[in-house]
Amino acid sequence: MLGIGDDAAVVEAPRGESGALQWVLAVDTMVETVHFNAATMAEADVGWKALAANVSDIAAMGGVPRHALVSVSVPRAWEPARIRRLYDGLYACAERYGVAVVGGDTTSSPAQLVVAVTVVGTVTAGKAVRRSGAMPGDAVFVTGPIGMAAAGLHFLLAAAGGGEQCVPLAAAEAAGTAALVQAHRRPAPSVRAARMLAARGTVTSLNDVSDGLASEAWEIAESSGVKLALRESQLPLSGSMAAYARRSGIAPLEWMLYGGEDYVLLGTIAAKDAAEAKAALAAEGLPMYMIGTVEEGNAGVELIQEGPHSGWSQAAAKERRVSLAKRGYNHFE
Amino acid sequence: MLGIGDDAAVVEAPRGESGALQWVLAVDTMVETVHFNAATMAEADVGWKALAANVSDIAAMGGVPRHALVSVSVPRAWEPARIRRLYDGLYACAERYGVAVVGGDTTSSPAQLVVAVTVVGTVTAGKAVRRSGAMPGDAVFVTGPIGMAAAGLHFLLAAAGGGEQCVPLAAAEAAGTAALVQAHRRPAPSVRAARMLAARGTVTSLNDVSDGLASEAWEIAESSGVKLALRESQLPLSGSMAAYARRSGIAPLEWMLYGGEDYVLLGTIAAKDAAEAKAALAAEGLPMYMIGTVEEGNAGVELIQEGPHSGWSQAAAKERRVSLAKRGYNHFE
Repeated sequence: MLGIGDDAAVVEAPRGESGALQWVLAVDTMVETVHFNAATMAEADVGWKALAANVSDIAAMGGVPRHALVSVSVPRAWEPARIRRLYDGLYACAERYGVAVVGGDTTSSPAQLVVAVTVVGTVTAGKAVRRSGAMPGDAVFVTGPIGMAAAGLHFLLAAAGGGEQCVPLAAAEAAGTAALVQAHRRPAPSVRAARMLAARGTVTSLNDVSDGLASEAWEIAESSGVKLALRESQLPLSGSMAAYARRSGIAPLEWMLYGGEDYVLLGTIAAKDAAEAKAALAAEGLPMYMIGTVEEGNAGVELIQEGPHSGWSQAAAKERRVSLAKRGYNHFE
Repeated sequence: MLGIGDDAAVVEAPRGESGALQWVLAVDTMVETVHFNAATMAEADVGWKALAANVSDIAAMGGVPRHALVSVSVPRAWEPARIRRLYDGLYACAERYGVAVVGGDTTSSPAQLVVAVTVVGTVTAGKAVRRSGAMPGDAVFVTGPIGMAAAGLHFLLAAAGGGEQCVPLAAAEAAGTAALVQAHRRPAPSVRAARMLAARGTVTSLNDVSDGLASEAWEIAESSGVKLALRESQLPLSGSMAAYARRSGIAPLEWMLYGGEDYVLLGTIAAKDAAEAKAALAAEGLPMYMIGTVEEGNAGVELIQEGPHSGWSQAAAKERRVSLAKRGYNHFE
């Protein structure tokens, strides 16, 4: 029904089953030195995050994650206790999201740790939410603050100072960046929000923010053939991220647009249901931020900035539009 | 229903589906320098074999492979053409076995190639064939010759002479080892045989020979609480393997018992149905070799050798029994 190219594949239930459910399948890989290193993530964090990234992909289809299979290629130098800690983190995430780990293959690796996780889930037949349904007039939303994971990674790399010692959470707590570090190490996918939103039938597209808000918005825009206009003042800004950005002399917008790995959901919803959906999520303690609108036009993503700011060509302008680059998140590169 | 510990997991169809089918899930990983190197396998061979190993796991449960998800961590130095060739081989295997590749994640790897494949299949509810059902009196069978893949690897490592140039198939053809090399590079799992055998309802245990005949027989013996007595004279011996073993001064029995990666099936079947099952498979052009019997006793695997041979303690003995070590296949180690 839907193969490579979305967050997860959706396949028809094979003959012999009722058509009431479809399968949703996703795979994600984490490679040491590419997605993390010994300083930024402890073993248990790697286990948690490898599964969470897949759980988020299933959520981004409106699906329910059910089963996981794990492939771990372990550096020869590792002691068994390190592998156990990796699985402890993975099982903690599995328990949190009601996922049964039903298969695993542990092999040795000549050098780096490689963890590939596959998650199999289900979705009500015909109800998977794709990237391609955004329509002009829809509201654009996210289900949580963005840029925190990137800020956390920035802190970790700075705190590690090129060393290989895992940066302790206590160091982040002392620096007021614990929430950012945990956003990077222990992402919490929006599974409940996804199910509630998908069930409304008014959500027209859905992506998880794995590669950065701009990149994910571009995916929806191109798949749907629309323009997404995001309003800078409405982007949910984490207080601790703003404080850390200020101290670091970095513009928080860079992290928010291009940071990635937040694993919140970005989607579009029929405008007439936006307020009610937001209220329904709020009643369950789940955030939903309206951050823009879908417009007709060439596929693209624009950021509406409110002004005037110094340096704007028209000093009196109330707002201006900036086209956002399609570039995504490049991890350590 | 059945988690880690067999060839593949079997999970209940989730609520909302009929109980007519269950899911079968398997994952396998291939790591460069651990499972293969540049001399022993071309890129397309790696792609084929990574999928075939999983297809074989699904077959070993009596299931039908349906969907695959692929995680490839590609060395930075690779040109795109090499990745394409890897996927070409994988897709060729997918087409051969009717598997739809529905998901993929390609990441970079700092050094070695790592390929992890997950296959999702189905099995008629309650009909998955486990390792644990072998009963005294059952016949033991395999669905093809064994040891060929190990002999092929032996040839490849010798032909490469420590170099990194992929050994061309022409070199194997010239040496009369092409069938052995192809058994190593392009294993052909016994999917049709598995389905036919599982449908009979008389197969009491089933494993695929990924880690060597002795190791797989031990798994069945321990899971079922029985002894497997294999008869050396009935083990299917490939002519080209025997010839290559003779030339190399190696005992073919070593490859046959401990070689691994043959991806044929080892199983047990009610004795009264053995001949009929063999005939049914033969009618479809599929081999089935009866190689021993299941006996009561402590879990273990014995090889019955027929004699007399020089060096036997009783020169007049017609046969003797040797306990087989539980050791499996260690790839390059």
